[in-house]
Amino acid sequence: MRDVDYVVSGDYVLTMAEGVPPLRNGAVAVSGGKIIDIGEVSALSSLYNAKKRVGGGGKVVLPGLVNAHTHAAMVYFRGIADDLPLRQWLQEHIWPAEGKWLNDEFVYDATELACCEMLKAGVTTFNDMYFFGGSSARASKKMGMRAVLGAGVLDFPTAAARNADEYIEKAEQFIKDWLGDELITPSIAPHAPYTCSPDTYKKTKLVAERYGVPLHTHLSETQFEVSEAKKKYGKSPVELLDDIGFLDKTVVAAHCVWVSDNEIEILARTGTGVAHCIESNLKLASGIAPVVPMLKKGVAVALGTDGAASNNDLDIFSEMSFSARVHKAVSGDPTAINAFSALSMATSTGARVLGMQDKTGTIEIGKSADIVVADLDKPHLTPFYDIYSLIVYSMKSSDVESVMVNGKLLIDGGKYLHKDSHAIMDKARWWKNKIAGEV
Amino acid sequence: MRDVDYVVSGDYVLTMAEGVPPLRNGAVAVSGGKIIDIGEVSALSSLYNAKKRVGGGGKVVLPGLVNAHTHAAMVYFRGIADDLPLRQWLQEHIWPAEGKWLNDEFVYDATELACCEMLKAGVTTFNDMYFFGGSSARASKKMGMRAVLGAGVLDFPTAAARNADEYIEKAEQFIKDWLGDELITPSIAPHAPYTCSPDTYKKTKLVAERYGVPLHTHLSETQFEVSEAKKKYGKSPVELLDDIGFLDKTVVAAHCVWVSDNEIEILARTGTGVAHCIESNLKLASGIAPVVPMLKKGVAVALGTDGAASNNDLDIFSEMSFSARVHKAVSGDPTAINAFSALSMATSTGARVLGMQDKTGTIEIGKSADIVVADLDKPHLTPFYDIYSLIVYSMKSSDVESVMVNGKLLIDGGKYLHKDSHAIMDKARWWKNKIAGEV
Repeated sequence: MRDVDYVVSGDYVLTMAEGVPPLRNGAVAVSGGKIIDIGEVSALSSLYNAKKRVGGGGKVVLPGLVNAHTHAAMVYFRGIADDLPLRQWLQEHIWPAEGKWLNDEFVYDATELACCEMLKAGVTTFNDMYFFGGSSARASKKMGMRAVLGAGVLDFPTAAARNADEYIEKAEQFIKDWLGDELITPSIAPHAPYTCSPDTYKKTKLVAERYGVPLHTHLSETQFEVSEAKKKYGKSPVELLDDIGFLDKTVVAAHCVWVSDNEIEILARTGTGVAHCIESNLKLASGIAPVVPMLKKGVAVALGTDGAASNNDLDIFSEMSFSARVHKAVSGDPTAINAFSALSMATSTGARVLGMQDKTGTIEIGKSADIVVADLDKPHLTPFYDIYSLIVYSMKSSDVESVMVNGKLLIDGGKYLHKDSHAIMDKARWWKNKIAGEV
Repeated sequence: MRDVDYVVSGDYVLTMAEGVPPLRNGAVAVSGGKIIDIGEVSALSSLYNAKKRVGGGGKVVLPGLVNAHTHAAMVYFRGIADDLPLRQWLQEHIWPAEGKWLNDEFVYDATELACCEMLKAGVTTFNDMYFFGGSSARASKKMGMRAVLGAGVLDFPTAAARNADEYIEKAEQFIKDWLGDELITPSIAPHAPYTCSPDTYKKTKLVAERYGVPLHTHLSETQFEVSEAKKKYGKSPVELLDDIGFLDKTVVAAHCVWVSDNEIEILARTGTGVAHCIESNLKLASGIAPVVPMLKKGVAVALGTDGAASNNDLDIFSEMSFSARVHKAVSGDPTAINAFSALSMATSTGARVLGMQDKTGTIEIGKSADIVVADLDKPHLTPFYDIYSLIVYSMKSSDVESVMVNGKLLIDGGKYLHKDSHAIMDKARWWKNKIAGEV
């Protein structure tokens, strides 16, 4: 009997590795942060002596979910202005609020809350774009989450910097500070083609190449953005970024709502990863991204929540349900994005889009132990005939019971093991009272 | 101090009564099944001596939700066949399964499970269409739920009856058996214009009029249904039912996905209630109902889950989130179906569509105490700036903590008080193993 940290078991283990069917009465052995074995629970129980057993009968084990596009700290602006168009929402509400409140302390505290919410909902990795990256990184790391943190770059001044060059300098310093960290991957994030010039995009690309880090941008989120780019540059945002050599497999492009067939070809050819944010896109009435054509052309499409200010939560289970349903109706094809595909988008494809396919996104020997256990013993999950279908069309993030990141058990029995979530929520309410002028 | 059964309180009481703003630190006094007072918790505490206090700080109190269209007993077919078109799903999977398994015992056991799921998710009233109505009624009543149970009518034989006349006879007997019950309202439910002739529709209408009970039908769910009706009758399903005098305010028409502007006028003019089932319609790729135009023309649109076999759950919180989001993108108007409207569709409009506006759907003095308490003290609900927005865009059915129907507390602290949900789930798994041929 070999000593290991954990044996995680369930009625089903869904590895999400290519071609591997659901493993009945399965288990995963975890040691030193890694997955070291996968098999039937009876077999693994005779091989490994676990310091702690996680999961058990009536549970399903799956890879930790990936939130491929968010602005974690915006969770403090959850619902601050709803039922408005994107530009009005951004220009009249979000940017002024950010201008007034953003600083290191805000970002640290808010990121802590966002990590709390995401972990509880089974998200183990997130791809962020925001400012004060050092604070995001410290908060995420303290919460035990895996994160790609994109230092935001704009052409105009905010609380974070005065001009593009200063944002880029700060981003470079942030990258130097965090490069090589086990949980935090620093990245650089030019905001969008309507807020960053082609020159700014080129500079961020050079920085990313210098340090070998990923890039993260908003792309073709609204029809307005596309028509502005065509007026200004004579081409669409996707064509513009392709022409300057920005697009490749190190880039995560969030949204891609307004992309033509030709632009989908560009995304496929360059290997650009897409973070599809259906709930945010619907709520802001930005439109519905052509995900079915993207998938047909081989574009890697992952799922993102966007910030909680436009969503208004950070729930990838819910994004799966929306994505799997909405694209059936939009494409007129009820077989489009089946349950397995939706779960792949939220796990293996999420990891691939972030360049982390060797580390997370599936349950495979040698990968980091980023694992979620959910309870099946609930009326809304009973009975069921297909486990993938159950997860995508019936399960809620609230069914998640245990969450492990990098081999560390962070949530068990639905409770945070190392953090006081009530203190984190109290801090959030204190900030909210300040922001709303209630104190 | 007057003795009452309950005082239900929360940081907010949302009465959903017209023109009444959220009541901060509010409370509701309940006695003899009815709401007898509403006010600030401090005021009510000095007026009433409650046998039990429900809710409290960090909670929100709202009317019980209304599920305006479902087939409760189909919960046993949850996910039996997914990612398929409606006709194939119905003809190759659902009808054969129903043909094989439907009987009184199945319907009783399955309805019990559906009630379990709905109650836990804050649904206190549901509008059903199925067969073996006596069993549905006994199960729903035993579970303590309010239900309008439509005895299904078809022109072809099933396990329930041999022909239209036999279905109608059975429906009439069912109506006689249950008329006047406090919780159960019997109704009659011609299935759809593609499965019932105009003559059958006319006969059901006569029965409904004779006993003063509501009608429930599927209407214009798929494009195929509309084109078939046009071929067969030279008019659309809505026009057909209008021409024979079927449509009026006693009718709940589920779906109404494929309705023209002119047909929307008909629905508005006749006062026909619509049960919008967005999640089911999306998942079957049936289409997206023109809800924004319907609301503009004054059609009463409530929310329904449809059966769990096509949804795959019975969750009205989730239907609110889908409806409020999808119709923004489809109409291109981010102000369409704001959070308050979505919650109205799920509560007050739901009750109105079922002809129960004097009994449920809002928290008002004299109405039955159908009340839900949800917890606000969760990371995904923190912080918030608008309580309606929080409920529609961030809250999940799993945040429901206490549920009262007709003044009886059925769920408290998230637990069933009078029922053993594990026994109900065990029974469901036993049936599932039989259905899937695993025993």
